[in-house]
Amino acid sequence: MKPTKRTQLGRLPNRGAYDSVTIHGILDAAFLAHVGFQADGQPIVIPTLYGREENKLYLHGSAASRMLRELESGVPACVTVTIVDGFVLARSAFHHSMNYRSVVAFGIARKIDGAEEKERALRVISEHLMAGRWEDVRPPTAKELKATAVLEFAIEEASAKIRTGPPVDDEDDYSLPVWAGVLPVVLEEKEPIADSRLAKATPVPKYIRRAR
Amino acid sequence: MKPTKRTQLGRLPNRGAYDSVTIHGILDAAFLAHVGFQADGQPIVIPTLYGREENKLYLHGSAASRMLRELESGVPACVTVTIVDGFVLARSAFHHSMNYRSVVAFGIARKIDGAEEKERALRVISEHLMAGRWEDVRPPTAKELKATAVLEFAIEEASAKIRTGPPVDDEDDYSLPVWAGVLPVVLEEKEPIADSRLAKATPVPKYIRRAR
Repeated sequence: MKPTKRTQLGRLPNRGAYDSVTIHGILDAAFLAHVGFQADGQPIVIPTLYGREENKLYLHGSAASRMLRELESGVPACVTVTIVDGFVLARSAFHHSMNYRSVVAFGIARKIDGAEEKERALRVISEHLMAGRWEDVRPPTAKELKATAVLEFAIEEASAKIRTGPPVDDEDDYSLPVWAGVLPVVLEEKEPIADSRLAKATPVPKYIRRAR
Repeated sequence: MKPTKRTQLGRLPNRGAYDSVTIHGILDAAFLAHVGFQADGQPIVIPTLYGREENKLYLHGSAASRMLRELESGVPACVTVTIVDGFVLARSAFHHSMNYRSVVAFGIARKIDGAEEKERALRVISEHLMAGRWEDVRPPTAKELKATAVLEFAIEEASAKIRTGPPVDDEDDYSLPVWAGVLPVVLEEKEPIADSRLAKATPVPKYIRRAR
């Protein structure tokens, strides 16, 4: 994708990327999006899970969800995904920074109506979060599908922004006796906590341990 | 704060909270916000670091930052903060969920102009991210302060949303031989990576290891 007025990065353009491989890579590595839209003159930002297929994101929730009802009315939306990789600690306060990967995507959502298409999209979301889980669980009933709203957000334009590597200090500051470097952070999975009402002898599935 | 039309949760109101203790607790436990605003008819959501003091959030960035320039023009903004605590794996696809803590805050930002007030706010942001760091580093020069935009976002209204605990399945599904439970996730700090140009014998400060 070419940068447009909406997506062109004003600052630090060397941190920006517009190619699908980079953008899709970040979208696939994350699972939480922050979706922005305007309602009654007020911008609203709501966190939500998603799945990706080609250049489309699927969002879902209760059919009664305000966010989904606003979005399906066809208002312009912004879907932003951010992965924090580390705190960048420079010798000066000014040059502190963050290592991260983010995508800002613009588009308009449409409601998915057919039960079959809906279930397909839900499967994409489920597989995005935890590949293998869908096959293991009880699939949605017709009633559950009806109670679930599923939206397709076709990405019209998007930009990625990435910062990696060590701090960049002013030349004069390198001699200061201040510790500088990167404190990496990673979202880690801990030991699964089995539900207290688990049917006897149900092992932890392998796909859970390689979830992300 | 009392729920208003903007903040009243339509769905699952039992997951909602409007008290300052809960809201400030979530804001203090996180460090990344997603800020939403409308510009040229397009909602935009940008990730940013922040600091909190009483009912105010401080945001900062380059004086050339588009987000900060739009926000300081006095447009309504939404600041959303989300901490993911785990994936909730139910026996049915339908009852899958996420354990999380989030805050959606509405308000209008104002630019902080005075150098002294600006430096104070930057210190609040720095201490929020890593208490102890500010004292250790070279403070900002007058020129650096000039190149930095700092905004104060006074929270007018906010709501918190929290989900904790195990999956809640349909009664009939509890007998299914499907593993169910919670896969907890935590943002963890890894070993600090020292900058290659570190002045000799500069130890890793203690505050880095108890950063978050």
